[in-house]
Amino acid sequence: TPTQLEIAMDAMIRIFHYSCKEGDRFKINNGELKMLLQRHLTEFLSCQKDPELVDKIMQDLDANKDNEVDFNEFVVRVAALTVACNDYFVEQLKKK
Amino acid sequence: TPTQLEIAMDAMIRIFHYSCKEGDRFKINNGELKMLLQRHLTEFLSCQKDPELVDKIMQDLDANKDNEVDFNEFVVRVAALTVACNDYFVEQLKKK
Repeated sequence: TPTQLEIAMDAMIRIFHYSCKEGDRFKINNGELKMLLQRHLTEFLSCQKDPELVDKIMQDLDANKDNEVDFNEFVVRVAALTVACNDYFVEQLKKK
Repeated sequence: TPTQLEIAMDAMIRIFHYSCKEGDRFKINNGELKMLLQRHLTEFLSCQKDPELVDKIMQDLDANKDNEVDFNEFVVRVAALTVACNDYFVEQLKKK
C-alpha cells in the first residue's frame, strides 16, 4: 500500500498532469501555473504568513508568463508557497 | 476545506517535521533524509523507472551526509525521486 508521502506525490502528479494542455504533456507555462496555484492553494494563499514572499513568487510567474515549467519546477513553487503560507514555518521566516 | 494539494503539502510538512531531531527544528541532515526517503517512498523506490537517477540522488545524499537540508530542499529531492520512479514520466525520461 502506498505511503502518505506517495499518496501526496500521486496527487501532485495528477494535478500537474491535469493542467498540461495538448502541447507538451510534461510542461505548463507560468500563466497556467499561476492559475493552478490560485485554484489548488486557495486556503494557503488566503492566510499568508509572508505576503511579500507570496507576491514575489506570483509576480515572478507573471513576469515569465510564457516560460514553461516542468513537474520539478511546479513542486518547487508549491513548496515555496507552502513555506510562505504556513504558520509552522513562521519562526523560520522570522529568522531570515 | 483544504484542497488535495493542500492536504498533500500538510502531509509533507508533518513527515519532514517528524524527522527533525531536537537540533534545528527546520532542518535535517542528508543521512536522516535518506532514511526518511527510503521509509516513505518504499513503493516508489522498489519500481524505479530510472535506477541510475535514483542511485545518483541517493549517493549525493551519502556524499554530503552531514549537510543539512530545509523543507524546500526536502521537497525538491522527493520530486526528483518521484520523476525517477513514476511511469507517468517514463517518456519524459526517454527524451533526455
